[in-house]
Amino acid sequence: MSKDFSDGAAWIRGSIVPIAEATIGVTDWALTHSDVTYDVVPVWEGAFFRLPDYLDRFEHSMQACRMDVGLSRAEIEAALHDMVARSGLRASYCALVAARGAPIIPGSRDPRECANHFYAWCVPYVHVLKPEVAEAGARLLLPDDIHRIPDDSVNPRAKNYHWGDFTQGLFAAKDQGLDNVVLSDHAGNVTEGPGFNIFALKGDTVVTPDRGVLEGITRRTVLELAREAGLKTEIRALPIAELLQADEVFLSTSGGGVIPVSQINERTFSNGRPGPTATRLRASYFDRLTDPTYRTEIAYEPAPA
Amino acid sequence: MSKDFSDGAAWIRGSIVPIAEATIGVTDWALTHSDVTYDVVPVWEGAFFRLPDYLDRFEHSMQACRMDVGLSRAEIEAALHDMVARSGLRASYCALVAARGAPIIPGSRDPRECANHFYAWCVPYVHVLKPEVAEAGARLLLPDDIHRIPDDSVNPRAKNYHWGDFTQGLFAAKDQGLDNVVLSDHAGNVTEGPGFNIFALKGDTVVTPDRGVLEGITRRTVLELAREAGLKTEIRALPIAELLQADEVFLSTSGGGVIPVSQINERTFSNGRPGPTATRLRASYFDRLTDPTYRTEIAYEPAPA
Repeated sequence: MSKDFSDGAAWIRGSIVPIAEATIGVTDWALTHSDVTYDVVPVWEGAFFRLPDYLDRFEHSMQACRMDVGLSRAEIEAALHDMVARSGLRASYCALVAARGAPIIPGSRDPRECANHFYAWCVPYVHVLKPEVAEAGARLLLPDDIHRIPDDSVNPRAKNYHWGDFTQGLFAAKDQGLDNVVLSDHAGNVTEGPGFNIFALKGDTVVTPDRGVLEGITRRTVLELAREAGLKTEIRALPIAELLQADEVFLSTSGGGVIPVSQINERTFSNGRPGPTATRLRASYFDRLTDPTYRTEIAYEPAPA
Repeated sequence: MSKDFSDGAAWIRGSIVPIAEATIGVTDWALTHSDVTYDVVPVWEGAFFRLPDYLDRFEHSMQACRMDVGLSRAEIEAALHDMVARSGLRASYCALVAARGAPIIPGSRDPRECANHFYAWCVPYVHVLKPEVAEAGARLLLPDDIHRIPDDSVNPRAKNYHWGDFTQGLFAAKDQGLDNVVLSDHAGNVTEGPGFNIFALKGDTVVTPDRGVLEGITRRTVLELAREAGLKTEIRALPIAELLQADEVFLSTSGGGVIPVSQINERTFSNGRPGPTATRLRASYFDRLTDPTYRTEIAYEPAPA
């Protein structure tokens, strides 16, 4: 009897299972210490997008966290491929996860004594901001009383699940009827939001923060697209005041591409609508998603007879 | 056939199961956003210690995180009791957890739209530092390049699993052959370590940090014991320099009570051995654990015939 993978699939402990059956133990340090690193590669029209770049970053994250999951890059790639193929999903949010695991010696508090492990899961494509929000322009909160976890507390370049600052910020944004939140660091520079990087356009120059952020693969794609469109790009500290004086602001995320921003706090951009440059980059991004150069095709299994 | 609960038990989704069967889904925000708050109540000689205090703090943490798990305090207390009774454990690390859950609407990124839930688990008593380390005096690293997550990023008073800073610090400590780590904040004040508060004794005065820390129940017990022993207590900012000039340093944790510290970085205390005051408080704490005033007895189930 074939199982139902319509809600998603997972590769866990060497097996492919429906997403609802994919669980980890409540004593795994992935949960009890948020001792986990992960990545998310988008699947679009039946192919992974920029898969080698995501695998590079995931390997870097595991090294930064001193984890060894005992699988080669080829084995991880095969797990992802077989899982998505089994799921049948042609547009998917596909997560790969390295977990510290539970201590080999019960009761140990030594992170060197845990059984690291890998798992992966995929679900139908997730929009980090709803498509209707992206079309209208996202309205963001930039709070002055919640700051991004600093990079000398938790390394933002090893993609992680430490989202307490974002969650608190999301509640504050929703309380005010706004769509999402972007956080600054303790020095007054803009960092990132939950699942996205941010860009400020002034004249013909696009600026995105260099510090306190994940180096997003979609951010990289957007920087490439901006240069191809004749814009100058700068990766450097972005003070809040400069962001608020931008001509246009937009976000990048593997879950939806380029998202124009129409408002941050009291400040509106482009008369409260998506700006023309952000709108063009948004279209370019969806074109790039189907460029064969960046695609790793998935060999889906035939539907059961 | 009776199940084997010797490794521990869990109360999850209304059932009591062996600890190895207690799992949560890989898409639960407890895992993917570390969106979870918890507490740990010690069980000692067949009774919970200071259970009402732990339940008070857990309720406060859930409110701070805006979670509603749909259970009354009495129901949570009954779940803990029945779980530990079933486990047969007379000395236990007993965790109670409130999790954000998964979005009710698949793909939602709104924390208001998740199905919050409660679970609990208990395992044999955990020593946060091994008893032989406590007897010899713990040797700690206080790194200058890793700082505690600030309280305007993640609220330390809502007990949480954001341990990335501690994990990095533990690796650094173990690399240097030390036992554990304590972190300072970005202003040069001492905060806490992974699972413990810290105290500095100078003359007849005990100081423990007031900011950037969990308000430990064991910390409270130790402050009470210190006052009963005729010491003065101060809860305030504790600069690193003042800590390093203390006569004695010790830790408090529900997983082992009072732990004398014999060394921090290059500085040794009490000639590299447990100090006399810390040693006395350590003994007082174990006496207090069996004081009926603070005990909630557990009605264990009779062993199967």
